[in-house]
Amino acid sequence: MNLLLLEAADFVAADRVVVRDRRLTHIQEVHRAEAGESLRVGLLGGGMGVGRLVRLEQAEAELTVELTQAPPAKLPITLLLALPRPKMLRRVLQTAASMGVPRLVLLNSYRVEKSFWQTPFLEPHAVREQLLLGLEQARDTVLPEVILEKRFKPFVEDRLPQLVKGTRGLIGHPGDYPACPRALDEPVTLAIGPEGGWIPYEIEKLTAAGLQPVQLGERILRVETAVSALLARLF
Amino acid sequence: MNLLLLEAADFVAADRVVVRDRRLTHIQEVHRAEAGESLRVGLLGGGMGVGRLVRLEQAEAELTVELTQAPPAKLPITLLLALPRPKMLRRVLQTAASMGVPRLVLLNSYRVEKSFWQTPFLEPHAVREQLLLGLEQARDTVLPEVILEKRFKPFVEDRLPQLVKGTRGLIGHPGDYPACPRALDEPVTLAIGPEGGWIPYEIEKLTAAGLQPVQLGERILRVETAVSALLARLF
Repeated sequence: MNLLLLEAADFVAADRVVVRDRRLTHIQEVHRAEAGESLRVGLLGGGMGVGRLVRLEQAEAELTVELTQAPPAKLPITLLLALPRPKMLRRVLQTAASMGVPRLVLLNSYRVEKSFWQTPFLEPHAVREQLLLGLEQARDTVLPEVILEKRFKPFVEDRLPQLVKGTRGLIGHPGDYPACPRALDEPVTLAIGPEGGWIPYEIEKLTAAGLQPVQLGERILRVETAVSALLARLF
Repeated sequence: MNLLLLEAADFVAADRVVVRDRRLTHIQEVHRAEAGESLRVGLLGGGMGVGRLVRLEQAEAELTVELTQAPPAKLPITLLLALPRPKMLRRVLQTAASMGVPRLVLLNSYRVEKSFWQTPFLEPHAVREQLLLGLEQARDTVLPEVILEKRFKPFVEDRLPQLVKGTRGLIGHPGDYPACPRALDEPVTLAIGPEGGWIPYEIEKLTAAGLQPVQLGERILRVETAVSALLARLF
């Protein structure tokens, strides 16, 4: 946690917050902070700045806060991800949030096991928890939007062309394709497949919607590694 | 597991292997392969190719193998990593192996907790296990070299200058530094700090040894994410 994320409900005055829950535990056990010390803070969806610990007790901490900085810019990207297996999903949500992805579409694919859609980690509060961890890691305050698309075909046929419009549409896909471009200064729509990859029918449909396959080399990367590698390459 | 990694001991004839252990379980339960099917195989430290399942029983599988391909090229890099916490260490070993890092130095730092050096995950067989998982993921056969350096100063003063010689020396470090360069075609020595970063004294010593700080933006990334992002940016 490199940023103490505050919510509107934590404010007891215009410049004063009281925190409890896991954030208090973190202040006590990881920061091992003491009254008088300063921490980096941010308001969820708002500014960032410095909080000074005016009171630190077992059950709560009180801070005065000054939020004068803007959060870091997001990447100009919509990331489409074949729904990863639950354990990987949690890490990918954190990774995407920490790297500044503003919009993430979790999509079905032939190689996504049906049971993955039943995981409790897809419940809104569980998704939010992982996104918050990513924001706290990277020092950002703005939650990415996460969209679940359980049906591949209607999404790719009916809604994807609209999303791709005005962006560079790419599919990260191992194979005999052009190398992933570098240092783009245009918005991107990037699709990353499941373990085992998209099937040819899906590549065909994604291509028809305006996306072009690109590759990062002959190595097959885990989804989480592919996400950070592709984002770092593109921007 | 995108590659069935074989060892010399698995060979019962020049072109024939018998596998048991977790690789057999994987063939049975994840590939759900049947006799007659083909799998991608590689010989640890050697070539890659195709294996045909000639016999699949509960206790063992027999394959005929043809190893005609070379493994993928490694990245021209030595990666110095402040020893991560044990759980992260395992994932970072996999990530580094899967991305093609040929040499990894795990280094002490002021912000590395002493207890991290006691983890059983640093024992050679445990390190090897994670590296093998990374190779199987990426389809590579060549184990990276992993070097443990428990004392920062003697390593950085006495051995690092030799490692850096003839390479581009870089420190991935958030701050007011030049942006991480892209698409290098020269060998690199890259140092990545612990959670919380290198302390100024360490930056000074690394710089004196020939490394220059570069940054990936204002976001603070987890070590594992930073590794894949920096490697994808550099090469």
